[in-house]
Amino acid sequence: MFSVTILGNNSAVPAYERFPTSQLVSLNGNKFLIDCGEGTQMQLMRFKIRYSRISHVFISHLHGDHYFGLIGLINSFGLLNRQQDLHIYGPAPLKEIIEMQLQVASTRLPFLLQIHTINSPGILVETAEFKISCFPTDHRIECYGFLFQEKELPRKLAAQRPKPRSYAYCADTRYDERILPFVEGADLLYHESTYLHDQFEKAELRFHATAKQAATFAKKANVNRLLLGHFSSQYEHIQAFEEEAREVFSASENALQGVTYLV
Amino acid sequence: MFSVTILGNNSAVPAYERFPTSQLVSLNGNKFLIDCGEGTQMQLMRFKIRYSRISHVFISHLHGDHYFGLIGLINSFGLLNRQQDLHIYGPAPLKEIIEMQLQVASTRLPFLLQIHTINSPGILVETAEFKISCFPTDHRIECYGFLFQEKELPRKLAAQRPKPRSYAYCADTRYDERILPFVEGADLLYHESTYLHDQFEKAELRFHATAKQAATFAKKANVNRLLLGHFSSQYEHIQAFEEEAREVFSASENALQGVTYLV
Repeated sequence: MFSVTILGNNSAVPAYERFPTSQLVSLNGNKFLIDCGEGTQMQLMRFKIRYSRISHVFISHLHGDHYFGLIGLINSFGLLNRQQDLHIYGPAPLKEIIEMQLQVASTRLPFLLQIHTINSPGILVETAEFKISCFPTDHRIECYGFLFQEKELPRKLAAQRPKPRSYAYCADTRYDERILPFVEGADLLYHESTYLHDQFEKAELRFHATAKQAATFAKKANVNRLLLGHFSSQYEHIQAFEEEAREVFSASENALQGVTYLV
Repeated sequence: MFSVTILGNNSAVPAYERFPTSQLVSLNGNKFLIDCGEGTQMQLMRFKIRYSRISHVFISHLHGDHYFGLIGLINSFGLLNRQQDLHIYGPAPLKEIIEMQLQVASTRLPFLLQIHTINSPGILVETAEFKISCFPTDHRIECYGFLFQEKELPRKLAAQRPKPRSYAYCADTRYDERILPFVEGADLLYHESTYLHDQFEKAELRFHATAKQAATFAKKANVNRLLLGHFSSQYEHIQAFEEEAREVFSASENALQGVTYLV
């Protein structure tokens, strides 16, 4: 199985029961977390996800709504006596921030925590079955998207599976066609859409995108399906995002908390 | 009005919908926050508390379940364009941790944030009407309790009010009679009770208290009422805490989330 479960779909300030960004990617029995806004561990519990099996966490950038829940998750793993290694990937100085907070609490984790600093596009994790890479997006501070790709299988095994699938997470970004080559042809694309298009100037100014822009990007990237998220707290209702996007790219839908989307 | 609203009553790992520690103290129109575990801002929203009016936050110690929600709250205040000064009190290096996280996100707050380092017992805030002081507790790392006291009013005004009231928050602590003089005669005492007394050895080892110990402390401190909290995640049901405490001190009750207790 290759799927994405939405844990939080809001931007900045949590609102209307929408939590800040976090997604769980399940890939052939492996579990990965993308971003980890405040309350992510509560969302994992709420949706009854066995989160002890998360092996890697990918943090796109150091705006709080994408990583303030990470230290709490790490701390809980420690208290729950996790043994398995945990790998974190994110821009500097994530490592320093996390380590300082563990140190002041005199926390000794019972597992190996490895925090890897991302500073350029490339492959982060690779196995015989899949690879995970990162690419730069166009945001106010250093920010990365992540691409999860199944690999081609040897012919004998390949018969069991139609073709390698891929999931692209475009993090926070302005509309930027320089990102297209990284996500070209993905089966499922998540592209932020913080605003509706009547606010595209605000979006541009704040290094965010609109639903229409996300759909335009999805169309140009030749992806199969688009997920919209990172909704601004100014919107109580989010139905209009999906509607706006579908006018440009019909296979668009809102990323809803607690829902699992197959890749 | 002088009251305490419980936002989180659990210890360490959140569990069974119980959030980590946070309390809102309302005192004659002023709002203060005591501790700020992960998800505190969500709890403030859930309970429909107008949290923009919080002027001071008191952090007892730097274990994550008491402050991991602080950076998110500060960040949200900024995004919501708060103008009023915000004062934070807590042990070092809280200031460094918060400022580093604001800096890496290039956050410029629209309000004045003052982080005051606590390193000894004494008065933190004093007005004509009340004073707030801190006192050391007996925990694994540097930790403080907080005492909120109304002052004696001039005789003419005093007629409107029976007598000055006080609320004592004993933070995380082992049973320790050295704390008694700081909280003597409080109208309302919050004392942690992480475990039931059949686990008093574990409590002692981890610098925590049991419900029976909290009640014994309350009795010796001659307080009017006792609130129990900071329950361990090992307990799905917490009714037994109240029952155990009442055998020693009848005016004991569990601190329940979303409930406001008059001082």
